[in-house]
Amino acid sequence: MIVIAEKINASRKSIAKALSERDADFIAQVAREQADAGADYIDVNGGAPDPRRELENITWLIEVVQGACDKGICVDSADPAAAAAGLAKAGEGAILNSISLEKARMDAMLPVVAERDCMVIGLLMSDDGAPAGGDDRLARAEAMVARLTAAGKKIDEIIIDPCFFPLAAGAAAVAQAIAGVRAIRENWPEIHIGGGVSNTSHGLPQRKFVNLATMAAAIVAGMDCPIVDPCVPGTMGLAYAAEALAGRDEFCMNYVNAARAGELI
Amino acid sequence: MIVIAEKINASRKSIAKALSERDADFIAQVAREQADAGADYIDVNGGAPDPRRELENITWLIEVVQGACDKGICVDSADPAAAAAGLAKAGEGAILNSISLEKARMDAMLPVVAERDCMVIGLLMSDDGAPAGGDDRLARAEAMVARLTAAGKKIDEIIIDPCFFPLAAGAAAVAQAIAGVRAIRENWPEIHIGGGVSNTSHGLPQRKFVNLATMAAAIVAGMDCPIVDPCVPGTMGLAYAAEALAGRDEFCMNYVNAARAGELI
Repeated sequence: MIVIAEKINASRKSIAKALSERDADFIAQVAREQADAGADYIDVNGGAPDPRRELENITWLIEVVQGACDKGICVDSADPAAAAAGLAKAGEGAILNSISLEKARMDAMLPVVAERDCMVIGLLMSDDGAPAGGDDRLARAEAMVARLTAAGKKIDEIIIDPCFFPLAAGAAAVAQAIAGVRAIRENWPEIHIGGGVSNTSHGLPQRKFVNLATMAAAIVAGMDCPIVDPCVPGTMGLAYAAEALAGRDEFCMNYVNAARAGELI
Repeated sequence: MIVIAEKINASRKSIAKALSERDADFIAQVAREQADAGADYIDVNGGAPDPRRELENITWLIEVVQGACDKGICVDSADPAAAAAGLAKAGEGAILNSISLEKARMDAMLPVVAERDCMVIGLLMSDDGAPAGGDDRLARAEAMVARLTAAGKKIDEIIIDPCFFPLAAGAAAVAQAIAGVRAIRENWPEIHIGGGVSNTSHGLPQRKFVNLATMAAAIVAGMDCPIVDPCVPGTMGLAYAAEALAGRDEFCMNYVNAARAGELI
């Protein structure tokens, strides 16, 4: 399992403020909190409020995060120049978040990820829009895998993001994403599957329950790279438990070791 | 969703003690706590420490629980005489927990549930032992449904218990039960599916994470009658969230109403 921590995102007010004020202490603290909670990667997004400054924002953010903890960097940008600069700064083993099947984005981003030793999140959006159900997600994942492997990526360097949409948008929205996770996992045992689940609770009260239930069910269905806030109580405990339930934690050793280390909160 | 609260079970030391001392205040308090936390039914098991006293134990427990709250009674006994007496005491709309495919138990229990206006939990154990995987659970559920409907039960009076076994017994143990839940739900949209999930965490530390992850994933897969301790924080919130994720809560109205009522803890 690879836990990607989502909080350092300029779409959040506190992060945008720290970014515009170049408040390194604040960013470093958020990075450390997420690292201490059990994150494997820190997602870093500097795309707001002024997209023209994204390249300098993301390189600054990465420098601060690297100074604050020793976790991997998940470079979160749809801008090819910012993504390339971010990956260069982040070094080997970084993750690009994300490429998609949209032609313009694919054409611009594919050279960026092809030339780097990095993992890449493949978002299943295309020029036809959002994926429709489990079968559509599997078909789109096949197209994504074909493009990325042709560009030199290995199957275990690919993280398919099935697109979690708000439950409030339709009763089947999340169930379809989870069906997609299951179909993709059955097709490729070695691929990674991950995505931001907090989108699912948009517009609902006490969002954490929807986020946690989505995460647990998706992990049991085959997701292994949750993009979450690991500081929310229940997140790491349920993530490790769900990995074990999925049959991906033999003898529950990871679960038991995490419990012993005090990481199951 | 029907939440069945599991705590009044004589296999728990505190309940066995209260039972042998006829400590009605203690039993009533446990019943009320579970009712206040959101239980729809209170499971009542009086089978220990002395099975010879099960009939008088269970009727006393039911009387105490009925005096303490207005929830339905889930009569938890494998003894036909105790089950019959318990169902008579519990009145209309009670649940029998449980019948199984084991010939002796089926033959003894079927007349008990046939003559009563009650729901019945059908445990997928048989004389061949425990169910093996998802397909085996579906086949056993078909046999169970055939027997129960032949005895006059309607499909929505049947609660299939897929048998949740300890994760520590095998990495695939819980995934197989959840696969069974999914197969059974696809086959019968109107049937109920439920079971005790706390068995899955047997022998593991911080059991609540395994229990909650199992519950959430099983509900998303189609379970609608979790047998749980609703007083454990996270249980009701995740149960309502998972029901919504499963597409069984249109416009998330049950989730939102439960949030407004302060029931999502």
